[in-house]
Amino acid sequence: MKKHEINKDIIWHNQNIMQEKRINLLNQKPCILWFTGLSGSGKSTIANEVEKKLFDMDVKTYLLDGDNVRHGLNKDLAFSEVDRIENIRRIGEVSKLFVDAGIITLTAFISPFRSDRKIASSLVKYGEFIEIFVDTPLDVCETRDPKGLYKKARNGDIKNFTGISSPYEKPEAPIIHLKTDRLDLDQCVDKIIDYLRKYEYIKESK
Amino acid sequence: MKKHEINKDIIWHNQNIMQEKRINLLNQKPCILWFTGLSGSGKSTIANEVEKKLFDMDVKTYLLDGDNVRHGLNKDLAFSEVDRIENIRRIGEVSKLFVDAGIITLTAFISPFRSDRKIASSLVKYGEFIEIFVDTPLDVCETRDPKGLYKKARNGDIKNFTGISSPYEKPEAPIIHLKTDRLDLDQCVDKIIDYLRKYEYIKESK
Repeated sequence: MKKHEINKDIIWHNQNIMQEKRINLLNQKPCILWFTGLSGSGKSTIANEVEKKLFDMDVKTYLLDGDNVRHGLNKDLAFSEVDRIENIRRIGEVSKLFVDAGIITLTAFISPFRSDRKIASSLVKYGEFIEIFVDTPLDVCETRDPKGLYKKARNGDIKNFTGISSPYEKPEAPIIHLKTDRLDLDQCVDKIIDYLRKYEYIKESK
Repeated sequence: MKKHEINKDIIWHNQNIMQEKRINLLNQKPCILWFTGLSGSGKSTIANEVEKKLFDMDVKTYLLDGDNVRHGLNKDLAFSEVDRIENIRRIGEVSKLFVDAGIITLTAFISPFRSDRKIASSLVKYGEFIEIFVDTPLDVCETRDPKGLYKKARNGDIKNFTGISSPYEKPEAPIIHLKTDRLDLDQCVDKIIDYLRKYEYIKESK
């Protein structure tokens, strides 16, 4: 510790440079692909397929979803309104860290409230938040009901269930709008990949 | 959504494969470099230098520290004992996500309690948690006092200040022990880089 003394300004300065450097090292422009939609709309399925496709293109990605967030970072949170807001806030903050690390970050959560999505989007820079509306009609989601949650919600066993007893506020102007009753999985995935290519979030491999 | 149906088992299975694949893609073995030590011991300075050096070797890294965590993810937390435990818990959980993403993750927080560091280490797999003790004598830290915190703590303006009015529990068997009164900054950094090379967390560039 003889050569350098601690200097907050220098450290902070270094960190600002770091994101720029990482973009060059990783050969990609980081962003959050924020999937929003009803339970059972297909958010996780589409996000997983997008991630797989990006991986095959050597893109560095990470997917945040219920599996790795609800049982870890957010395991202290329940489903009250306050906790649901906090859930989305933390996911936004963690996504911001991943974007800072240069990673193309996918999040797959219902995130039903505009105000919460707005907070998440405000955490990152312009162009780093890509809202993707997985627009599947409620009756389709309810027919699928992969986890049996709609049935429980209809029976009153789950309170505040989005689409049944709690509102889903549709994105007013999503950057990518996936009408899943008109598009199959591959078409949904291609639409996202095409967008990332068009705006140079991803490039041809070095 | 016609070709595939949502299947939690398949999704989970994919995610397990993903970390393996990422290790190949990124050509490195992810881990947490967990720096612990008193305020002013030099954790951030050393961690920043290690990150810079790794970056120059094309290693994909991310540094979690007060700058990017305290004002973001953990901005709802104060300095009570409960909040300090929660602070470290979240840092551990976020580090776990970064490790899952294949990133060599550096954390620079006092993390004074063994029990908290033990929880953080238990979140990841064997060999993924590398405890680094930045062992700087209290009187040296207090003389540096880069943020004027020791002075405030001595005056009683800050309560529960590690080393003054709250204990620092030294690591009993840190994987890397940096006695900073005997090593200069470069030697501290080299010791860490050598360890990462020796145990093949980092490899020669492709």
